[in-house]
Amino acid sequence: MANWFINCDCGESYGRLSVGQDEAVVPLIHSANIACGFHGGDPSTIRRTARLAASHGVDCGLHPSLPDLMGFGRRVMAMDPGELTDILIYQMGATKALVEAEGVRCLHVKPHGVLYTMLYEERYAHAFADAVQAVDPKIAWICEAHKPTARIARERGCNTVFEFTADRAYDADGNLVITRMPEPVDPDFAVAQVRQVVTEGKLTTTAGTTRDVDATLICIHSDTPNSAEVAAAIRQYLETL
Amino acid sequence: MANWFINCDCGESYGRLSVGQDEAVVPLIHSANIACGFHGGDPSTIRRTARLAASHGVDCGLHPSLPDLMGFGRRVMAMDPGELTDILIYQMGATKALVEAEGVRCLHVKPHGVLYTMLYEERYAHAFADAVQAVDPKIAWICEAHKPTARIARERGCNTVFEFTADRAYDADGNLVITRMPEPVDPDFAVAQVRQVVTEGKLTTTAGTTRDVDATLICIHSDTPNSAEVAAAIRQYLETL
Amino acid sequence: MANWFINCDCGESYGRLSVGQDEAVVPLIHSANIACGFHGGDPSTIRRTARLAASHGVDCGLHPSLPDLMGFGRRVMAMDPGELTDILIYQMGATKALVEAEGVRCLHVKPHGVLYTMLYEERYAHAFADAVQAVDPKIAWICEAHKPTARIARERGCNTVFEFTADRAYDADGNLVITRMPEPVDPDFAVAQVRQVVTEGKLTTTAGTTRDVDATLICIHSDTPNSAEVAAAIRQYLETL
Amino acid sequence: MANWFINCDCGESYGRLSVGQDEAVVPLIHSANIACGFHGGDPSTIRRTARLAASHGVDCGLHPSLPDLMGFGRRVMAMDPGELTDILIYQMGATKALVEAEGVRCLHVKPHGVLYTMLYEERYAHAFADAVQAVDPKIAWICEAHKPTARIARERGCNTVFEFTADRAYDADGNLVITRMPEPVDPDFAVAQVRQVVTEGKLTTTAGTTRDVDATLICIHSDTPNSAEVAAAIRQYLETL
Repeated sequence: MANWFINCDCGESYGRLSVGQDEAVVPLIHSANIACGFHGGDPSTIRRTARLAASHGVDCGLHPSLPDLMGFGRRVMAMDPGELTDILIYQMGATKALVEAEGVRCLHVKPHGVLYTMLYEERYAHAFADAVQAVDPKIAWICEAHKPTARIARERGCNTVFEFTADRAYDADGNLVITRMPEPVDPDFAVAQVRQVVTEGKLTTTAGTTRDVDATLICIHSDTPNSAEVAAAIRQYLETL
Repeated sequence: MANWFINCDCGESYGRLSVGQDEAVVPLIHSANIACGFHGGDPSTIRRTARLAASHGVDCGLHPSLPDLMGFGRRVMAMDPGELTDILIYQMGATKALVEAEGVRCLHVKPHGVLYTMLYEERYAHAFADAVQAVDPKIAWICEAHKPTARIARERGCNTVFEFTADRAYDADGNLVITRMPEPVDPDFAVAQVRQVVTEGKLTTTAGTTRDVDATLICIHSDTPNSAEVAAAIRQYLETL
Repeated sequence: MANWFINCDCGESYGRLSVGQDEAVVPLIHSANIACGFHGGDPSTIRRTARLAASHGVDCGLHPSLPDLMGFGRRVMAMDPGELTDILIYQMGATKALVEAEGVRCLHVKPHGVLYTMLYEERYAHAFADAVQAVDPKIAWICEAHKPTARIARERGCNTVFEFTADRAYDADGNLVITRMPEPVDPDFAVAQVRQVVTEGKLTTTAGTTRDVDATLICIHSDTPNSAEVAAAIRQYLETL
Repeated sequence: MANWFINCDCGESYGRLSVGQDEAVVPLIHSANIACGFHGGDPSTIRRTARLAASHGVDCGLHPSLPDLMGFGRRVMAMDPGELTDILIYQMGATKALVEAEGVRCLHVKPHGVLYTMLYEERYAHAFADAVQAVDPKIAWICEAHKPTARIARERGCNTVFEFTADRAYDADGNLVITRMPEPVDPDFAVAQVRQVVTEGKLTTTAGTTRDVDATLICIHSDTPNSAEVAAAIRQYLETL
């Protein structure tokens, strides 16, 4: 399976309120983005998720968000970049401490929800870079190679890991087609996307065009109702490589 | 089915974070306690739950809590009674407004989680009565007939509806045996408890003793993993009466 | 003093965390906008503020916000209009219940912080109108006569009260010049603005132009450090009319 | 002034909501307990407080709390010790990261509000020790020498710094006499208490008895309205030593 890794958001439950299917998904993936408390992920869930990931040899990373539990970090907030940096450092320091309390290192960081696309704006990407360099300058920043985020990360000397998303389609401009309340995804569709990237380094968009994909990380969504099934299908394909 | 009614907590999800199985349970019950935002229940969930209940002819009620989303209202907080009253009025007024925006009336109120047992203490029961009388003096207060709460409610001139819990056992002192992370409940156990109350007006405790039960409301727990199955079994039994 | 009324945000403190100088300001104003819990205003503060206002014969109104305590309701959030309506109904119902528990009626409603300017967008103004009509169709909606908000309010059949702001300057486009961390305001400047509106029905903008002002409500800001001094000066002027 | 140090809670404001008088108090003290977000202290306030402290050569420490912003961490919550540990690690990791982003080290930790007295219970003191050892085993734990907390801290091999409180009286059992909404404190009273500890190693209680005091840290309360005046008076006395 060479250099391909399945990555998924995890640890987003909050007390008795739950989302995702971590118990089923974690054994099938290679790296987990652990929610940091601001869109999900209470302290005990963070720690339990780190333990679960470690028990399956899954890498742990940080998954900070805008401060919006009710909106699950999916509502754009107009935030001062300096405030954003501070909010990110808070979440990353908190979650790193809990993960390390389980004897596990945090190897990567991925912005959650709408923060991911907010980083296409330079001032927010720099705010994120400021947080990364304050908390752990060596941590790998998950982003897409074709977006401005990757360019800022490189300019700032941050380590990066490039990803593409297997369980959603891309449009002609290279943006994901996101639905608010996700529906089950056909595992064959996800595997076909992975196969196309692995064999051709390309993806077919919803417009019928193709785009080059430079990535080693295969993102699947935690809140797809059948995410475990999708992860299993991709994992099975990867094992044939 | 005469005068027996199945009651269940509903609307406890919070944005994308969820708990309970409202879609499956609501069609099987007679009255729903709608979470008021402090242990679960964001505004849109409250409203959607009122709509769901109304569409099935299910009565709506209020289900206020201690202010503790992370702990799901299940951690005792030492609160000034006056503060508690204010927190209750806030939640009840908020939720009532949303339910009424759907053209539905709130007919009852039931304290959530650990607040339910905190009301065994007189000063907290009076705090609850103060809130009831401020928001809607005619609303029916759900409580257990054998507890001090019922006595204070009566002394204060509040309307009451007495309940017993079908899907948990009672101990010799008339207290529920609660587990923190509930496991599936044998529907036959729940039906047997309901049958015993309906036919004998009694329940057998975990100590093997029996206790008189004065109740018309049959409580089932929303977070029992198979709560819909339990509701269906009780409903089926009630229809034989 | 005829038909001029001083209006100010109040009740924005949250537990031990405080903002504003309600004790000093409330005796000097005619109507108070009471924070509803989402940018400030815990339940007991709401109730205490209603009591304080009533004791000085000051009218009480509702002051709902975006859900952002950390940002004091001053960060734009991209929110679904339906969700916004629900969030507004929640806050308005909650606060109305607490104010009414003090035997006081809520006569007006004013959107807080950045929500005020978000309502210049039609879909959000309609979302606000939906909330007003759900909670209390007769309540008076505070807005500026020259903004789209006022037009939507009229189209929707809502009652309105027009305001202008005395303690901030307007620019040539009729927008307030807002600073994030407010500094003390020269009471003479505020009184001069009030005098110009009272005597000419106009205000001079920061560009030196003048604008017509159609308003009876004189808004002053609660978080101006010397807001009581400003209120006293305006009050004194009004008493000469 | 030898080995006496004035210590005060700081950084408890939350966005625009404020408490304390950090700008006035910090220049007068030797070490600051920085709120960690759960009773006060948003991320930007935490960072600004670290910067302020560092600019005056004041030591920074962590001041974690129960999760209760509305109650300012002053309402007892019945919490599972394991959950408490996780909540503490979260806050300590978060705040440490922000303080270190300012190039400053956290040298001590002091539990906030009612958590301070909850640690008199062994299981909670152990939960606190677990958090300390996970986040920074060398950090100094501020406690009172005569309380069980100090014994557990020693048994667990944690570093300790002993404090006494200058601006409140002790009762005969060695407990502080706490008022909910603090009133101004006579600076002479506070200085007299400090002098008695410095010169005799004793304090006179409200019962007229005396108690031995083993402490080097002089605690003053941030929310005493005249805390800066009290700090200045103590500082002046210390400089005469």
